[in-house]
Amino acid sequence: MTVLFDTHRGLLEEALRALETRGFWTPFPEVPSGKIYGESARDEGQTAFDSSIGNPFELPEHPGANSVGAEASPWGFDLGITYPAADVSDLVAASQAAAPAWVEAGPKAWVGVCLEILTRLNRMSFQMGHAVMHTSGQAFPMAFQAGGPHAQDRGLEAVAMAWSEMVRVPETAIWEKPQGKGSPLVLEKHWQIMPRGLSLIIGCNTFPNWNSYPGLFASLATGNTLIVKPHPSAILPLALTVRVAREVLTEAGYPADTVLLAPDATGAEITQNLVRDPAVRIIDYTGSNVFGEWVRSHAGADTQVYTEETGVNSIVIAATDDFAGMCANIAFSLSLYSGQMCTAPQNIFIPRAGIDTDEGQKSFDEVAQGISAAVDALLSDPMRASGVCGTLANPATAERVANAHALGRVIRESHALDEGRSASPLILAVEAGETDAFENECFGPISFIVAVDDAKAGVAVAADLAQHKGAITAALYDTDEDRISDAAAAFARAGVNLSINLTGNIYVNQSAAFSDFHVTGANPAGNASLTDAAFVANRFRVVMWRRPRAA
Amino acid sequence: MTVLFDTHRGLLEEALRALETRGFWTPFPEVPSGKIYGESARDEGQTAFDSSIGNPFELPEHPGANSVGAEASPWGFDLGITYPAADVSDLVAASQAAAPAWVEAGPKAWVGVCLEILTRLNRMSFQMGHAVMHTSGQAFPMAFQAGGPHAQDRGLEAVAMAWSEMVRVPETAIWEKPQGKGSPLVLEKHWQIMPRGLSLIIGCNTFPNWNSYPGLFASLATGNTLIVKPHPSAILPLALTVRVAREVLTEAGYPADTVLLAPDATGAEITQNLVRDPAVRIIDYTGSNVFGEWVRSHAGADTQVYTEETGVNSIVIAATDDFAGMCANIAFSLSLYSGQMCTAPQNIFIPRAGIDTDEGQKSFDEVAQGISAAVDALLSDPMRASGVCGTLANPATAERVANAHALGRVIRESHALDEGRSASPLILAVEAGETDAFENECFGPISFIVAVDDAKAGVAVAADLAQHKGAITAALYDTDEDRISDAAAAFARAGVNLSINLTGNIYVNQSAAFSDFHVTGANPAGNASLTDAAFVANRFRVVMWRRPRAA
Repeated sequence: MTVLFDTHRGLLEEALRALETRGFWTPFPEVPSGKIYGESARDEGQTAFDSSIGNPFELPEHPGANSVGAEASPWGFDLGITYPAADVSDLVAASQAAAPAWVEAGPKAWVGVCLEILTRLNRMSFQMGHAVMHTSGQAFPMAFQAGGPHAQDRGLEAVAMAWSEMVRVPETAIWEKPQGKGSPLVLEKHWQIMPRGLSLIIGCNTFPNWNSYPGLFASLATGNTLIVKPHPSAILPLALTVRVAREVLTEAGYPADTVLLAPDATGAEITQNLVRDPAVRIIDYTGSNVFGEWVRSHAGADTQVYTEETGVNSIVIAATDDFAGMCANIAFSLSLYSGQMCTAPQNIFIPRAGIDTDEGQKSFDEVAQGISAAVDALLSDPMRASGVCGTLANPATAERVANAHALGRVIRESHALDEGRSASPLILAVEAGETDAFENECFGPISFIVAVDDAKAGVAVAADLAQHKGAITAALYDTDEDRISDAAAAFARAGVNLSINLTGNIYVNQSAAFSDFHVTGANPAGNASLTDAAFVANRFRVVMWRRPRAA
Repeated sequence: MTVLFDTHRGLLEEALRALETRGFWTPFPEVPSGKIYGESARDEGQTAFDSSIGNPFELPEHPGANSVGAEASPWGFDLGITYPAADVSDLVAASQAAAPAWVEAGPKAWVGVCLEILTRLNRMSFQMGHAVMHTSGQAFPMAFQAGGPHAQDRGLEAVAMAWSEMVRVPETAIWEKPQGKGSPLVLEKHWQIMPRGLSLIIGCNTFPNWNSYPGLFASLATGNTLIVKPHPSAILPLALTVRVAREVLTEAGYPADTVLLAPDATGAEITQNLVRDPAVRIIDYTGSNVFGEWVRSHAGADTQVYTEETGVNSIVIAATDDFAGMCANIAFSLSLYSGQMCTAPQNIFIPRAGIDTDEGQKSFDEVAQGISAAVDALLSDPMRASGVCGTLANPATAERVANAHALGRVIRESHALDEGRSASPLILAVEAGETDAFENECFGPISFIVAVDDAKAGVAVAADLAQHKGAITAALYDTDEDRISDAAAAFARAGVNLSINLTGNIYVNQSAAFSDFHVTGANPAGNASLTDAAFVANRFRVVMWRRPRAA
């Protein structure tokens, strides 16, 4: 069954080219526009989302006699959606029952099905935007992008990378070994890609799709069966994804149970039982490093575990030739989705004696005030403020903000915004030697402006934090090329990606599929990278049969 | 420093082409001939080996105030060679001290150094042949091949695969994102390959080089530093390898301690301390599954572990159109290096009612006798017998043979050969339902001819054993294409490579670099495959820095 592969071959080939050059490319437009997605798409998406509220989620033929679901939108209402819930053993049994037919299908079928799922998901990006908005708490424009086209990009990237590694193995070869003057030895050899087994995807609350799609599509594209375990507070986006996957599988003649949903309830999570199940051979996990460590140490010794965990991201400000642009850029990075992006900066290291800028020498406090004022300016319009900051996905984050004031000198106070459970950025100033508050992740809209001896010391502390606590991003503002070069080397050794002198509409938080590798796997913020060869190559194995060539 | 890379670029490119087509290819001739290796090579190799006997092994500048070494040739004499031995903490410190300069060198330097090491090792294949012969107990022709050119092939294969995965990541890119009618966002991006860290290679007694070179060269080619831990009974081959590596590193201007030797003594092994050291980030292990399980479960959660462990390999005989050829082929596979190859068959499943052959119907006992007689014929000349069987690497294997007689009906008795600690194949017949003796690995020249209901039952038992106990090879003799096809599918599901109807000079034991993937990683006989992309891709990480493109 390679019809779907043939249908989407052009898309795959473009993605493969993009992965080679790593310039900008996407087949999934990020602008939520009717001109692109069809004039009725916006209304249809809204209607589809609205009609799901308060109802059982339909997942035809899916195992599960019970139902769970208690999602509440951080924007202020209960979703009231329930999902079919099955025991772990029933899910595993259903997955194993689906496996033989799916394994048999082979790489072209696996990849073709994945590409069809992605293109269908793209068409429903408005509906998905609402689903992500009301589970993650992101504002709609971000939810549309991060839950829709950007997540689809990351899924497609994983499919393309998986395909490129599978086709490195030829299907057949003739092996002909010379034997001096005698006849050569001739064997024909046949290789087959065999999936590793059952793949468990553990989603997170803040980016239910974006962080799950790489593992989900990498595993599906390499022939594994999937159990998708959403965060109990963000089930809907992955439930929609699983439903589309099951529809495509069914239409293509494969078992729908190749992709299963494993929803659960807060306080009665089934994640640990899934992780420990001996049938599970691959785990993709996004979440805290506390539970991440549990997953890594309780998964079977033969289970391949890929994680993105928490870290402490830093900015070092050494100098700038665009003070206003720098402050505005940092202000946006601190505000966007209220610091709940895994790529959001937490610490801003500034020399105690201040820095050189295009506006003359600025003291430590002047730089701190410049950033604070830029946040105020960015959020001065309440509607725009909510559009940038969104809401707080988890009530614990609101508590954390409230309790953080004592951790330093308050440079900017946090305020509730007009909509939803929300908090604007809290900015604190501290002395590097006098507290270690900034050395741990304070998830949410909390940042520390940290006084250090000089720029070099700032880079050293930031890189050390990245190496030992983990970091996904780092940023630097400087005008001295030698110092920039030294900093780049230091952050490279700490295994963290560095953005230098960003101003304007590009932010350290942003990671573009087909170009940026997200997470390096080289520090505690995660053991895998989205999406490099290592992320896909161990999801399948290769088996051979060989025999003397028929005469 | 890319002189070495430029020197060997042609070799690398040929290897890359071979990996794509997977036909026969090798740059390292397997015939121990003066015409190929130089007329003086044989004598020089012998002299070099002889002069090492009874002396301290010279490893200039290598850490280690103590000395260890108690190797005894299974051919009947003590080597009396001692090696510099350092504490684990000193080895780790030396490796970490060497890392920065080696990391800095970059992919072309890493690969160039590896290729130079391999070509130098090739030139000393005679010396290495003796070193492998008198540690593994292999006969010289096999020791020359397996410890020399065939191991070098496997090393080169790993280097080429590593290079191919590293160059998937471009060094730079311009990322230009359109902004409607505005100016595009333009970033320049720079990527750097960063090694994972300290790589520990744990060698085995029987194939000290062949099994170690893939991990050793895969790690070195991706910029990691190495601690090479040989089996206490087979230090010399890896000591020679480490010495060559250190010479090349020094000449090229890199720290010799990039590659360290960690010899130890039986009863005072340091392996566990090395495995548990938090600095170790990669482990390659070859050995028993008992210790393999210990390694997998005691290595750090962030340590990538690659193993080849033990398994139970099977042959299923359903029918043959070349009875004599089949028996001769199997006889050689059972005899070669006395069943001490990880690819050697242990079990031969034969239908209780016998099989169809070109010589007419043969009863179970006639087939068993045919194989037994073929072993007798193969080993009838004492010198040839020693040349095929070699010796027993470990005294425990001799005991195991002696104790195995009670496990079944003796079809062929084992005898000591003329030279060294040796035992010709012991062949036992059993009933599948009446014993489980054949279900566990009986390492050494012990095989079971197992009566089963029919060929299909034989395939089922053999595949089940492979899946649950592990297997690296499987073989089938049959003339029915439908049954062959079913068997191929069954063994593929069990994750084991299958050889069909081998006769003549090609054996199930043989695994050719650049063509056969050795071990699938899909059953308990190992979690990795030599050498697929998964074997190399996770030995390095990718880090980036990006900045707005200069105007």
